[in-house]
Amino acid sequence: MKLTDIKTILVAGAGTMGQQTAILAAISGYRVVMYDISDEILAKGVEGIRKNGDRMVRVGVCTSDACSLALEQITTTSDIKAAAVDADLVMESIPEDPELKGKFFGAINDHCKPETIFTTNTSSLVPSMFADRSGRPDKLCALHFHDVTLSKIVDVMPHPGTSSQTMDLVKAFAESMGQIPIVLARENNGYVFNNMLMSFIGSALSLAAKGVTSIQEIDRSWMGVMHTSVGPFGIMDSIGLDTCWKVTSYWANKRNDTQAKANAAFLKGYLDKNMYGIKTGQGFYTYPDPIFSRPDFMTM
Amino acid sequence: MKLTDIKTILVAGAGTMGQQTAILAAISGYRVVMYDISDEILAKGVEGIRKNGDRMVRVGVCTSDACSLALEQITTTSDIKAAAVDADLVMESIPEDPELKGKFFGAINDHCKPETIFTTNTSSLVPSMFADRSGRPDKLCALHFHDVTLSKIVDVMPHPGTSSQTMDLVKAFAESMGQIPIVLARENNGYVFNNMLMSFIGSALSLAAKGVTSIQEIDRSWMGVMHTSVGPFGIMDSIGLDTCWKVTSYWANKRNDTQAKANAAFLKGYLDKNMYGIKTGQGFYTYPDPIFSRPDFMTM
Ligand SMILES: NC(=O)c1ccc[n+]([C@@H]2O[C@H](COP(=O)([O-])OP(=O)(O)OC[C@H]3O[C@@H](n4cnc5c(N)ncnc54)[C@H](O)[C@@H]3O)[C@@H](O)[C@H]2O)c1
Ligand SMILES: NC(=O)c1ccc[n+]([C@@H]2O[C@H](COP(=O)([O-])OP(=O)(O)OC[C@H]3O[C@@H](n4cnc5c(N)ncnc54)[C@H](O)[C@@H]3O)[C@@H](O)[C@H]2O)c1
Repeated sequence: MKLTDIKTILVAGAGTMGQQTAILAAISGYRVVMYDISDEILAKGVEGIRKNGDRMVRVGVCTSDACSLALEQITTTSDIKAAAVDADLVMESIPEDPELKGKFFGAINDHCKPETIFTTNTSSLVPSMFADRSGRPDKLCALHFHDVTLSKIVDVMPHPGTSSQTMDLVKAFAESMGQIPIVLARENNGYVFNNMLMSFIGSALSLAAKGVTSIQEIDRSWMGVMHTSVGPFGIMDSIGLDTCWKVTSYWANKRNDTQAKANAAFLKGYLDKNMYGIKTGQGFYTYPDPIFSRPDFMTM
Repeated sequence: MKLTDIKTILVAGAGTMGQQTAILAAISGYRVVMYDISDEILAKGVEGIRKNGDRMVRVGVCTSDACSLALEQITTTSDIKAAAVDADLVMESIPEDPELKGKFFGAINDHCKPETIFTTNTSSLVPSMFADRSGRPDKLCALHFHDVTLSKIVDVMPHPGTSSQTMDLVKAFAESMGQIPIVLARENNGYVFNNMLMSFIGSALSLAAKGVTSIQEIDRSWMGVMHTSVGPFGIMDSIGLDTCWKVTSYWANKRNDTQAKANAAFLKGYLDKNMYGIKTGQGFYTYPDPIFSRPDFMTM
């Protein structure tokens, strides 16, 4: 399989990331089949794709006309056989559960051509957890996106059984969609960016949970030395405090790390008050117009 | 002691940080006495102060005239008694050794007025390590600077015996010099910013030391998602790889942390080749004009 052989992309999962990757592939000239477990979910997914298309036009990724044309390239189906029949490459964005992903790749393997490439968008799992169940471990790797309207960085990560041809092809495929692939030499939990982000955020949470100083002082400190427009707590508000809590408590329990457990509890206190971040209008800060965006934040 | 009572500042140590804090205090209208162990060192220190003054004029902290006037406000002495006699506040920037700092504060305590405030600029120690030896623990706290031409963020940190009056006064003093004080509620190793920075850098070093991907990919990943002009390895080059190595190996040994030891060894490999970062023209990148500053870095 060469890059020019890739024409039809199967996007599995019509949720947050499925919607983003579907519109990105379509804008880049690929035919897209979006697959999910029910037609109702797919109908909502198509609405979401339209919204994501509007966002991409707003941030200048493509023109409004190109976006309309791209939308026409996207079809949907809840029939796994129909989804698989033409697929040259699969971009999987179904829920973060190794069992479920294994089952999905096993099922899709039966209906895809032997040369079809499989990619997973998992955030916190690693492909080796379900590589064997895919039936074609050499053709499976991770292709992991950050929010596609905010960043073009994608991780391309093998598991020990991924072939170098698959890695080269997925890298080229990412580039063909205007993305900047970060190629990992080996499997690593949290890839590259997320790994650094979690360390950085973990440290900020520890400072707050231990009562060293306030959330605002911590953000001010980072913003003032790094000259950025947002600090760690503002970043967490944009990620969503539920996601931050999930990842923090997962690792806290897995590593039996007392400080990380305290950090998870600190986040949980916000969730219990329905403070999830930007999406609920309230997290560490109040939105819109959080005080850290005010011109006098540094000296107030 | 009130802020208006503070007129004369004793800057102890005429090295990197002593030079910076001396010119900052002088520009802010304080009389400054710079103290070090020999007149030769002090002569070099004065040269350094002039250079730092030029940098402050260049970055717009003050006019060239104001800088010249400020330089006239700085005197030097290697006589501890003469250094102490008029001091209202001490800013200590002598080498990072708790024994040496304890000895210094004990000695200066004998010659200062009882109301004189003592501050330490230590990076990795905590004031409680030498508070008792200062003879006036209630009047001692940390006043910790980041490079004064790059940032106005300063940490103001108590040890358990620091009085709240001392904290308030040192905070007000920092503000009188145009700085943004981050006030810590309690003693914490690495303060606020350095704590987050070290976690972030530790994660980046682990990715490189484990061979997950290249230094450039790691920087690209951070820069591409966070939209910053520099990534963790570029930041380390500006801190100095010797300093990064010192801090990394100190904590690696103290915590007996295998990955941190590997990270220290990774940094040591650069030091052994005389690659210290920007200051030697070569670190992770080559200076001036490191490739990460090129417009095509993200896609090369
Ligand atoms: N949300 C993010 O910011 C983000 C970022 C990068 C990666 N990811 C990863 O992407 C994946 C999906 O995350 P999301 O946030 O889009 O989740 P989501 O819950 O928004 O969407 C998941 C979708 O998968 C569908 N689904 C469930 N079982 C399925 C099956 N067997 N076959 C096909 N579809 C099925 C669900 O109906 C749902 O529509 C996860 O692995 C996650 O870790 C998420
Ligand atoms: N360099 C940095 O980037 C930086 C940043 C923040 C804080 N600090 C902290 O500031 C302190 C000084 O660091 P530096 O980089 O300026 O060191 P430096 O080696 O450049 O300067 C130290 C100076 O102290 C002098 N000295 C030694 N013993 C002395 C004594 N008994 N009395 C008076 N002076 C004495 C030395 O002669 C030398 O001139 C350290 O505690 C360090 O952790 C450094």
